[in-house]
Amino acid sequence: MTTRTLLVLDAEPLPRLGRLTGRARIEHADESTLAERLPYADVLLVWDFTSRAVRAAWPGEGPRPRWVHTASAGVDHLMCPELAASDTVVTNARGVFDQPIAEYVAALVLTMAKDLPRTWELQRERTWRHRETQRVAGTRACIVGSGPIGRTIARTLKALDITTALVGRTPHTGIYGPDELDRLIARADWVIAAAPLTEQTHGMFDARRFGVMQPSARFINIGRGGLVVEDALAAALAKRWIAGAALDVFEHEPLTPDSPLWQAPGLIVSPHMSGDTVGWRDQLGSQFVELYERWEAGRPLLNVVDKKRGYVPGR
Amino acid sequence: MTTRTLLVLDAEPLPRLGRLTGRARIEHADESTLAERLPYADVLLVWDFTSRAVRAAWPGEGPRPRWVHTASAGVDHLMCPELAASDTVVTNARGVFDQPIAEYVAALVLTMAKDLPRTWELQRERTWRHRETQRVAGTRACIVGSGPIGRTIARTLKALDITTALVGRTPHTGIYGPDELDRLIARADWVIAAAPLTEQTHGMFDARRFGVMQPSARFINIGRGGLVVEDALAAALAKRWIAGAALDVFEHEPLTPDSPLWQAPGLIVSPHMSGDTVGWRDQLGSQFVELYERWEAGRPLLNVVDKKRGYVPGR
Repeated sequence: MTTRTLLVLDAEPLPRLGRLTGRARIEHADESTLAERLPYADVLLVWDFTSRAVRAAWPGEGPRPRWVHTASAGVDHLMCPELAASDTVVTNARGVFDQPIAEYVAALVLTMAKDLPRTWELQRERTWRHRETQRVAGTRACIVGSGPIGRTIARTLKALDITTALVGRTPHTGIYGPDELDRLIARADWVIAAAPLTEQTHGMFDARRFGVMQPSARFINIGRGGLVVEDALAAALAKRWIAGAALDVFEHEPLTPDSPLWQAPGLIVSPHMSGDTVGWRDQLGSQFVELYERWEAGRPLLNVVDKKRGYVPGR
Repeated sequence: MTTRTLLVLDAEPLPRLGRLTGRARIEHADESTLAERLPYADVLLVWDFTSRAVRAAWPGEGPRPRWVHTASAGVDHLMCPELAASDTVVTNARGVFDQPIAEYVAALVLTMAKDLPRTWELQRERTWRHRETQRVAGTRACIVGSGPIGRTIARTLKALDITTALVGRTPHTGIYGPDELDRLIARADWVIAAAPLTEQTHGMFDARRFGVMQPSARFINIGRGGLVVEDALAAALAKRWIAGAALDVFEHEPLTPDSPLWQAPGLIVSPHMSGDTVGWRDQLGSQFVELYERWEAGRPLLNVVDKKRGYVPGR
């Protein structure tokens, strides 16, 4: 068996690769050494999924990895025309984040319905102030993104007796197409962005779309920061076009201390952690090792990204 | 038809009684006038369910209302030996609070699992700090109190794939008896107090019981403040016997600004609002009017409290 070179782009140690010891030549790269090492690698594991170095370093021609795996659901940080046009296979971490993210969305929905951020504030002030809160049962959610994450969010919200509508790129049984989006978000109490970041979805939540939403609506983004025109969201909140929002992802991460988003009225800011439950790194590591073993044995890979579309198609 | 006197103990206006205009002589009392008016009333509606005035004002002998309705699930604030021994019927607001409270408990469980209080703090400080959070799916909840509120909590948590155990006064299909309580709370990730306040349940969550719980466990009380020995809970949190808690009800309400509970580590304090979703006063008013119409027509009342036990028995 030929020993292949596995190049890992990592900013911190990654677990569970021990099983590949002696079977793969494991090398590491950081953002500064990636371009130089990439031509000598058979496989690239993008463990540091916050890095955009792959786009910059990907060789236009000549030797290159035959397979790139990213330890993330989204692939927007690594896709570039040269990679899309090549015969290199790209896989992602489909499946690992579905349930954690769905629970996180349910946490945000319930937190906003029950006015818990205000409860915290009043607790700090040692103030007893009774308020009436909202029932979530019977409310409507529109979930934009019909992949495994969006579908798991829909299932979880349905379990709380919330009526859900899923919007995807292509209409399908139980999935609305993009033409229905405006009509659905205009009726939704909860609008949840769970789409991949592609040319079609970039900036889709803009001033016009926030204007279509109900004044009582809340917007949640656990997809990618680029789905949202952040200034337009901040303005919509300030003008009370919508009642509240929660962002777990941002156009530029980490959010810098001077960002006005930290203090936008009615906005909950969290640091891109919705899918990251205890043990997630182990799961990502194990998932890659399983894929590696398939690849080594010549079996077809799973979670293969449609590089033109920017996500893993199909159900 | 004899016009009956309906005495309302109220601190604020109550809705939906308009339908009784001309059919009942509606009088109002506050805490200072209750004792004097009580003997002349056929029915007492305890709309101000925060008041303990009924216990003090209830006539030991002589004329008294034949029916007392409280716009609350608990009856601990009005029960006294004289009322318990009398032939006066007591009814409560069974059913109105079940789903709102269950959603509130789910909100607290998810909020604690996803570390949202810390997220708020970091947002105030404009600090981006990624953390790993917990999955709730696969965790275990022990719900103490097997009435409609406890059962609805169990159903809601099960929908989030949480394993639930219900503990009631009497073992029953799907309900554990008090003998099993210590074993169950020792295994629970979430211990939820949803029992009525009675002689048997008063102070049941004491230092010994917090000592039995896991260091990773969280405790939630949406029942009555008297179920919990508050000092023991504060000590258990300070010593990290348990990982966190949320209290919506307290031994003395409102909680005064000097209470140490406001700043107990890992404790979420909310002002007795778990069941109070928009429209709750209307629902309570409508529920009473329906009961009044049954009573006026000589049909049996619903939600009749077992005055010895202190709650509405049966499923």
